Amino acid sequence: MSEPVIRVGLLGVGTVGSSLVSLLEQRSDEIAKRRGVRIEVTRAAVRDLTKVRNVNLPHQWLTIDAEGIVVDPEVDVIVELIGGISPAYQLVSTALRAGKPVITGNKALIAEHGAELFGLAAENNVDLLFEAAVAGGIPIVRPLRESLVGEPVQRVMGILNGTTNFILSQMSELGTSYEAALAEAQELGYAEADPTADVGGHDAAAKAAIIATIAFGASVTPADVFTEGIENITADDISYAADLGYCIKLLGIIERVELETISVRVHPAMVPNTHPLASVRDSFNAVFVEGDAVGELMFYGRGAGGDPTASAVLGDLIDASVNAAAGTAAILGIPGPADVVSIEQLLSAFYLSIDVADQPGVLADVAGVLAAHGVSISSLEQLGLGDDARIAFITHKAKEVAMDATLADLKNLNVVKQINSVLRVIDVT
Amino acid sequence: MSEPVIRVGLLGVGTVGSSLVSLLEQRSDEIAKRRGVRIEVTRAAVRDLTKVRNVNLPHQWLTIDAEGIVVDPEVDVIVELIGGISPAYQLVSTALRAGKPVITGNKALIAEHGAELFGLAAENNVDLLFEAAVAGGIPIVRPLRESLVGEPVQRVMGILNGTTNFILSQMSELGTSYEAALAEAQELGYAEADPTADVGGHDAAAKAAIIATIAFGASVTPADVFTEGIENITADDISYAADLGYCIKLLGIIERVELETISVRVHPAMVPNTHPLASVRDSFNAVFVEGDAVGELMFYGRGAGGDPTASAVLGDLIDASVNAAAGTAAILGIPGPADVVSIEQLLSAFYLSIDVADQPGVLADVAGVLAAHGVSISSLEQLGLGDDARIAFITHKAKEVAMDATLADLKNLNVVKQINSVLRVIDVT
Repeated sequence: MSEPVIRVGLLGVGTVGSSLVSLLEQRSDEIAKRRGVRIEVTRAAVRDLTKVRNVNLPHQWLTIDAEGIVVDPEVDVIVELIGGISPAYQLVSTALRAGKPVITGNKALIAEHGAELFGLAAENNVDLLFEAAVAGGIPIVRPLRESLVGEPVQRVMGILNGTTNFILSQMSELGTSYEAALAEAQELGYAEADPTADVGGHDAAAKAAIIATIAFGASVTPADVFTEGIENITADDISYAADLGYCIKLLGIIERVELETISVRVHPAMVPNTHPLASVRDSFNAVFVEGDAVGELMFYGRGAGGDPTASAVLGDLIDASVNAAAGTAAILGIPGPADVVSIEQLLSAFYLSIDVADQPGVLADVAGVLAAHGVSISSLEQLGLGDDARIAFITHKAKEVAMDATLADLKNLNVVKQINSVLRVIDVT
Repeated sequence: MSEPVIRVGLLGVGTVGSSLVSLLEQRSDEIAKRRGVRIEVTRAAVRDLTKVRNVNLPHQWLTIDAEGIVVDPEVDVIVELIGGISPAYQLVSTALRAGKPVITGNKALIAEHGAELFGLAAENNVDLLFEAAVAGGIPIVRPLRESLVGEPVQRVMGILNGTTNFILSQMSELGTSYEAALAEAQELGYAEADPTADVGGHDAAAKAAIIATIAFGASVTPADVFTEGIENITADDISYAADLGYCIKLLGIIERVELETISVRVHPAMVPNTHPLASVRDSFNAVFVEGDAVGELMFYGRGAGGDPTASAVLGDLIDASVNAAAGTAAILGIPGPADVVSIEQLLSAFYLSIDVADQPGVLADVAGVLAAHGVSISSLEQLGLGDDARIAFITHKAKEVAMDATLADLKNLNVVKQINSVLRVIDVT
């Protein structure tokens, strides 16, 4: 029992905070044995002191004074689990300025203010760790910031939102409609009553911004991320994709475009069934990393939930505590400005499904429009559909502007009745 | 250019060493920018000074005097890529005693002498890092030693050998025989002329020992690992497994049995097709971690090859260099003694395929033998086979000793013509 004791000030005792307190209680001896520090929560800020909590925290440690905790000289490390920008931003900044290491699971805060907070941490020579902010329990922040700093990373693709992956998996495996799958996700508590942040891709976009920042050392915020959600994906899209050997996933894609430019986007994409990301089902998350030297890596696990998230927080907390006990900190670099290429300038392969009149020359007309914009076809299938016909095809990579122009011209063709869907396809060259 | 310079002494300039030198050359500025140290290889020990190397190392840096490098005051960090126990063991020990951090990709060395070397590193307050020793480019050592120290890990299952995974994938996807798949692996350079270390499970066993040691903080060596290879797996086994919804993988399984006891084993196992490990094809590796809090995690990537391995070495080298520049080290605990349960005492579910005479009462006889040893059946299928019949079934979990006794009694039954195969099945309760 002679290990140095690190006193933790906990901001927020919700699901994750409660899990963390239990986990610490259970693992404290093992942590002391293996890492040489004893970690104890000694202060905890809550909004309501009268609320009954299913967690073993002595009542005298609870306070509503979060501002007091972050400057309390008897607190060594701050764990911020309040979420949202305010007051978390002020609290975390104050803690760092007071020379206290901070662990946070706050995705919004790191996505919006990461670069500034990393700078503040470096200035004050303290740790700012946030493994839980991206992909919950999956250790991905640490590998990207540490193990892979030397790696020429070319692209990171992530299934970063469990709710949408659950919805798409249900649609794919059971043939459910989008609406029914969403309703089930809401019943199971995976999706909020207002599901916009999930299904609109905004949650994934915040995580993509953080991944871009740490993978490429360049400061990217959610405003830089082109974002499309899954609201328009239909059971038909999924079933046609399956016929072609693909599934549909909502991907965050962070990619080096040229030496100094990157692209960061979130959108549904067709993923070949043989790709490791295709096997990520249910509400699981995964991050797929491609580097020149390391080749392909994938990190898979639970992206949300109290216990998995608390596990990630605890990993960071142990690290920060060991460093604090030794009087050091891991300064992991301050990201520079990012040069993010706009989506229009990117090259993507597309899947198009269009309904056309079933008459001679239609295919020639459609193919003519594509050719006029320099878009070439990789594979095509034609399906009879009563009086009409449906053409579904996958293009080779083309500039997004060229595809926009192609779609506009296709809509103006008399023989084209309707454009059913347009989806980006990964790993078609 | 004002970053502190860390001078690296490289022991061994083979495939991995050459990749490392190139990677460092390419990434040196980026590493300096993001981690604040400049890493330079300034000495390199080789066996033959006259050999022409496709790597940019000034000739005056090369030496055959590895013993000189590990005590050279002008070398700050040692990277050991010689492999094997001797002289690597002596060189690494000397370097640690001389207060130099060591990065090694030496699986055999860490598996056999890990606990002792960790102790030596702690005593001298220097880093001993070995990400490349397990699963090549996949960052798994760091997550297990750092991110997951707080996690109550219950089980780790790994596809730890690329050669055998390639062979089993070929057999499964193309219906190839074991012999033909092995020959192809040898042609492609995945398997050695003498493939015993791979196909016999010994390479995987060394990695399993390392994983056990770092996941449970208890010193396990290859001698503690129950090891069975894939030499007896037939195309029939794979095709029957497929019929039942399973594939066959060579797994390293490291598991908590009771509070203070663990089990470490390597053997072929039937894995449900819906399990994430089932989607690990070709020569890829993956490590699947189950913890009480974090749930399921999987780490996937290239387990071998010069560039992926060099990427892992570089991640460690950056870490050790940052620490060395700051005068610190990450002491990650010295493993205690391990209490490894022998395979006979474990509970496993089994797949059995036996050829029996096609006559009334056979099933009752077979079922009677199982019942006598307390082994119960989870699922069963009977196949006609000319005069004979084949019974294939999966049991519920039973003690390995009970299964051994069952097999002995089955062999003595007159109606049993032949026991075709016995395979352990994961995730059947």
